[in-house]
Amino acid sequence: MIRYVLVVAVALASGCAAGPDPVPAEDPLPSWNEGSAKAAILDFVRAVTDTNGNDYVEPAERIAVFDNDGTLWVEQPIYTQITFMFDRVKELAPQHPEWKTTQPFQALLEGDMKTVAASGMKGILELAMATHAGMTAEEFTARVTEWIATAKHPKFERLYTELVYQPQLELMAYLRDNGFKVFIVSGGGIEFMRPWTERVYGVPPEQVVGSSVKTEFQMKEGKPVLVRIPKLNFIDDKAGKPVGIYEHIGRRPILAFGNSDSDMQMIQYTKAGDGLRLGLFVHHTDAEREYAYDRESHMGTLDKVLDMASENDWIIVDMKNDWNEVFPGR
Amino acid sequence: MIRYVLVVAVALASGCAAGPDPVPAEDPLPSWNEGSAKAAILDFVRAVTDTNGNDYVEPAERIAVFDNDGTLWVEQPIYTQITFMFDRVKELAPQHPEWKTTQPFQALLEGDMKTVAASGMKGILELAMATHAGMTAEEFTARVTEWIATAKHPKFERLYTELVYQPQLELMAYLRDNGFKVFIVSGGGIEFMRPWTERVYGVPPEQVVGSSVKTEFQMKEGKPVLVRIPKLNFIDDKAGKPVGIYEHIGRRPILAFGNSDSDMQMIQYTKAGDGLRLGLFVHHTDAEREYAYDRESHMGTLDKVLDMASENDWIIVDMKNDWNEVFPGR
Repeated sequence: MIRYVLVVAVALASGCAAGPDPVPAEDPLPSWNEGSAKAAILDFVRAVTDTNGNDYVEPAERIAVFDNDGTLWVEQPIYTQITFMFDRVKELAPQHPEWKTTQPFQALLEGDMKTVAASGMKGILELAMATHAGMTAEEFTARVTEWIATAKHPKFERLYTELVYQPQLELMAYLRDNGFKVFIVSGGGIEFMRPWTERVYGVPPEQVVGSSVKTEFQMKEGKPVLVRIPKLNFIDDKAGKPVGIYEHIGRRPILAFGNSDSDMQMIQYTKAGDGLRLGLFVHHTDAEREYAYDRESHMGTLDKVLDMASENDWIIVDMKNDWNEVFPGR
Repeated sequence: MIRYVLVVAVALASGCAAGPDPVPAEDPLPSWNEGSAKAAILDFVRAVTDTNGNDYVEPAERIAVFDNDGTLWVEQPIYTQITFMFDRVKELAPQHPEWKTTQPFQALLEGDMKTVAASGMKGILELAMATHAGMTAEEFTARVTEWIATAKHPKFERLYTELVYQPQLELMAYLRDNGFKVFIVSGGGIEFMRPWTERVYGVPPEQVVGSSVKTEFQMKEGKPVLVRIPKLNFIDDKAGKPVGIYEHIGRRPILAFGNSDSDMQMIQYTKAGDGLRLGLFVHHTDAEREYAYDRESHMGTLDKVLDMASENDWIIVDMKNDWNEVFPGR
């Protein structure tokens, strides 16, 4: 940080701030406490944007990828999309009398979460397909848009889109100001995120990568529509993340930010490229302001990464110590 | 066009051209002859960028999609990627002695194109998988980059990347100058295009949509790599094009440009959105400067579209009459 202050001081003294591209005199990451994580970010951005340095990267290649759940917004006590799915099953139940006697729908409708959990991946997938498919693309977008505008988090009693991390909003803005293109690469559903990522994160739909169901082009009453089919298309998680990046972006990122073992392959792929690269993980250490969890958590397990971080030069961001704000002020 | 000249004249007279965003005094589409196609494009762009008009579209929603083969570059006498594939089979043959007695490899190596063609889609797919998979992502990019830098078109004896349409280069630049984001949506292989689209068209890899093989993330000697698997992943053609747009872009385009019946669904999907939309097709009518083909052609069949264009308000661009230049000057 000392170096950063010096650069700004020199820039101000030399009058650069009056030019057409003023050097920001203010801290671009005010919600980040001084420390090794913040210093690593500032050093990295300075290095890849310094046209005279050895680590300079052309703007076109300044690709940054962020996981979503637990990296950009809260993922406890349960992934937000699962809450959406549960709410949708309850809403759709009157049109599906058969759900009263079909698992795991029955258990969910009766509030028996133990049985829902016991239905495993197969059960969750059935719930997902029943709520995420069987409608047009536009209908699904409308459902997500409605839900996200009103559903509130059980602990914080705020909209989920208000439970995004202020330090990450600042980081994404800082990267964009420095010529980066910021993408989201999430295990969550691509079309569950796209309706609101531009408004909330400044990330447009075309820069969102995620899991998906199959889609089919059909003519309905002479009108072309895209229909969502109850079949998995792609799982953008773990080893799927580098694949999703390759398919959607077609370039290797130079910065990747995750928070769990599911993001490990994305960070490995990012760091394996030539030249300077940065890989970071949020470590949820703040039970008071957010949640504290890692190795034993069902959501966002952070285990192997903690063991492997130091030898791989991955930056572990300690939420409690590295962030002085967690959520944006009301 | 008269209206365009008037707008420029008024802007110049009022001194706007001296401001920070000068109104271009020059024709932005000099290779397009005056006529209904050019007028439709200029009128459309003016309408969607006029903040005071009823047809105004926010810059974020100004998505334009272009097919590649036959729309942005030459596709006769055979798709460029097929030539690449044939060249690769010949190059790889010494490492594959079994090809000498396996169809359709044997026929191709013996120059018996009739038998290759008779092997149909199944045969072509086998050739495609043998040449497009079984290597890392980086190795494939290197092969494409090498080939495209040297291979020449049989009729024009120029590099394929020089056989791009000058009027379309101007159109893509004009759209970008007016806040559009330009994507390629092609039936061709996504990774066959990405290595050169930025240099040739100004379209970055992340704005290229195409057909693909499956990819797998693997650790090889401790290094993470993406390996291309000989299995089809996605066919971005016909009804696949709107699906590819939905998956990659997540917004409906407002302008779509194709040249064949394979682009029809993409144009239908584009035009079915609310507000002003533009759908265009190149009609190859110029046997002298390029090729003349439509209903009977194996590459880029333009048949149904010709019958349906007028009732659907699709613009047919007549290469011979609408374009005064076809390829960029040497």
